[in-house]
Amino acid sequence: MLTALEKQLSFLREIDRLKRVVRQSPLLDKSRKENSAEHSWHLAMYALILSEYAIGPVDSHRVIRMLLIHDIVEIDVGDVPIHGGSSSEEQARLEREAAHRLFGQLPAPQGRECLNLWLEFEQAHTDDAKFAKALDRFQPLLINVFTEGGTWSESDVTREQVISRYGPVIRAGAPRLWEVCEKWIAAHFRNP
Amino acid sequence: MLTALEKQLSFLREIDRLKRVVRQSPLLDKSRKENSAEHSWHLAMYALILSEYAIGPVDSHRVIRMLLIHDIVEIDVGDVPIHGGSSSEEQARLEREAAHRLFGQLPAPQGRECLNLWLEFEQAHTDDAKFAKALDRFQPLLINVFTEGGTWSESDVTREQVISRYGPVIRAGAPRLWEVCEKWIAAHFRNP
Repeated sequence: MLTALEKQLSFLREIDRLKRVVRQSPLLDKSRKENSAEHSWHLAMYALILSEYAIGPVDSHRVIRMLLIHDIVEIDVGDVPIHGGSSSEEQARLEREAAHRLFGQLPAPQGRECLNLWLEFEQAHTDDAKFAKALDRFQPLLINVFTEGGTWSESDVTREQVISRYGPVIRAGAPRLWEVCEKWIAAHFRNP
Repeated sequence: MLTALEKQLSFLREIDRLKRVVRQSPLLDKSRKENSAEHSWHLAMYALILSEYAIGPVDSHRVIRMLLIHDIVEIDVGDVPIHGGSSSEEQARLEREAAHRLFGQLPAPQGRECLNLWLEFEQAHTDDAKFAKALDRFQPLLINVFTEGGTWSESDVTREQVISRYGPVIRAGAPRLWEVCEKWIAAHFRNP
């Protein structure tokens, strides 16, 4: 039988693997693709700095925790790109299984807490989760704008696709940030 | 004049550079060295999972924030390795300058808040900061133990040096975690 601390340390060792999950988005200097661990750090910083722009009064501590754990399931199932990736029922089922397996390694109350926070993020019904989801879309959009198109250029994504793939989620969680995006998108597709 | 949001977005773009600051510690699978952004994510997860082992009752939200920002100064001054690196007065001065320059890009109240949190971490007088500092030593120690010596083997570090370089900080912030370290260290230097 593992002690609580042994379970926790084993979990913390296992999630080291998130550093090897590579995303589509590049770093801003385009030297390489971003991985999901550093992406999660950056998103937590977005939440720390930008919470005043959330759709409603959010608990920024909860949003930060949500964003720290939101991608851990990718250790089992990988990253699904927004452009060209299928976000199917099957994918959602695999992610739920991964969440149960990974958070299930923690002592029971703590594992349940993490799982519930992850489910809240996925369901995106609360203002905290809507804001977290909005940031998770806003950060790659910002990267694309500031890397002359980034993944949009690679995948021939149109202005209309950008608006439909990012708009609803960002507007739902951080309308003021979506206003900024609209200006960036207009400028980008004028001078692609 | 930049608006508050423009300043915040400019800061969030600048700290993308933390992903390019490479540390001495490897990933657990030894495929490459860890960078300071993913290290910060991992430490924030350590705080999220291990706060019950802190020296006193800590505010884990504050500890998480502290760890998210603790290495941002490395964008200007780089990472100083614990083994062989000089942690001089000059280095401390450069880091303070970096903190003022970087957090100074944020709107004034927010920038001051980040700077104060960073200073609290550096001074390590409060239980929150002592615990954050302890985790910042505990994580690389764990990596070394689980990679057959890691940076210890590279730099011919002795058992006594490990105990003197990690012990005081980890014991001061998380005594129960230091007990685990003592067992790991004993086993490691029996079978190096």
